[in-house]
This record gives sequence, C-alpha cells and structure tokens, in this order.
Amino acid sequence: MILNLMVQYQETLDRTFSALSDPTRRAILERLGRGPATIGELAEPFDMSLTGLKKHVRVLEEADLVTTEKVGRTRECRLGPGQLEDATRWIETHRRRWERRLDRLEGYIEKKRSGLT
Amino acid sequence: MILNLMVQYQETLDRTFSALSDPTRRAILERLGRGPATIGELAEPFDMSLTGLKKHVRVLEEADLVTTEKVGRTRECRLGPGQLEDATRWIETHRRRWERRLDRLEGYIEKKRSGLT
Repeated sequence: MILNLMVQYQETLDRTFSALSDPTRRAILERLGRGPATIGELAEPFDMSLTGLKKHVRVLEEADLVTTEKVGRTRECRLGPGQLEDATRWIETHRRRWERRLDRLEGYIEKKRSGLT
Repeated sequence: MILNLMVQYQETLDRTFSALSDPTRRAILERLGRGPATIGELAEPFDMSLTGLKKHVRVLEEADLVTTEKVGRTRECRLGPGQLEDATRWIETHRRRWERRLDRLEGYIEKKRSGLT
C-alpha cells in the first residue's frame, strides 16, 4: 500500500516534469492561467497545426495540468487540478539540501583562509 | 540579444524539467545531495548496468545538474551548478496565478450563495 503510493508519487512527478519540459506546453499553461481557451484560440499564437497543438494538450491532460470539455463544436481547455505542489516540493527539498552543502563548504574555505592569514 | 536570452532561458527550462522527469535521475540527485559518489557507487542501489546509469548521468550533466571528474580509474560525480531556481520560479509563478483565479472563483460563488439566502 505504501509502496503503491510511492510508485504513484514517482509517476506523478515523471508526468509533471515531462509535461513541463516543452516550451509550447509551458506557454499553453501560461495562457490558460489568464483564463479558459478553445483549442483554436490556443493554436493561434503558436503558428502550429491543430493536430500538433492537440498532442501537447493531451500530454498536459495526462498530467492533470489541463482539463478539456466539449462545448458545442469546440473543445474548451482550462487549468486542471495537477499536482504542481509535489513538483515544487521535490525541487525545493533538493535545493535546500544542496545549499546547506555549499554553506558548509564555504564555511570550511573561510576557516582555512582565516587560519592562513 | 534579449531574444537570445529568452531562447536560452527556455532551453534551460526544457533541459532541467526533462532531466527531472525520470525517477532514477531524481534518485541520483538525491544521493549526490548527501555527497559525491563514483559511477559505480551510484549504480549499486539501482540494480542497473553501468552503461544505463552513465546515460542518466550524461542527461544530468547536460542540464548542469551534475558535474563529473575523472579521478584515477573512476569518475566522481557531484551536484553541479544547475539552475533549479529558474525551474522553481516558473512553477511558483504559475501556481500563484492559478490560485488567485481559484480564489476569485470562490469569492464569486460565495457572493452568489449569500445573495440566494
């Protein structure tokens, strides 16, 4: 059960980071941050085929970062319930640990240096 | 010049998020957060061939998240100067904007509801 949760957590991180690793997909999320948009409206500024854009939207949907809904003849996209918290938390934990290591290293160099003068 | 910086920024984000989208690569970073390690030491807990592990280390190197140095017969890996700040900042900006939208939506629903009672 715990193992299962761990696997799910890792898979969510995989999907989230992978979805964020493309500039068009990040731009789509930025655009949807300003409000919902149809696939056609999303495609416009990107100079991209609808098919190409739909593929990106699907990747974002699989990561829960976007939800889409058929409205009449169009498909409306909006930000989804995606777990960006987990992604930020992972990066932040990693950064803090790393900065502590750098601080310790700096402290060591400082001590060496003051010993020399 | 500004366009060039923008392209570089986007490419850095691409490489960083892409590097983080794999559980083995995240585990390597977590391991190196506790101190430097050789390729052999990194491979041990993963039950993975040295070749497979080297590929992951190369992806991390290209994203500047890891640096490696040949020491005698082994190659020592440590955390690199990778720009995790940009990645966190991107996610955080996106999250804040999104939370503000949710807040506004909640406020709207609240107002509607109090109008009804």
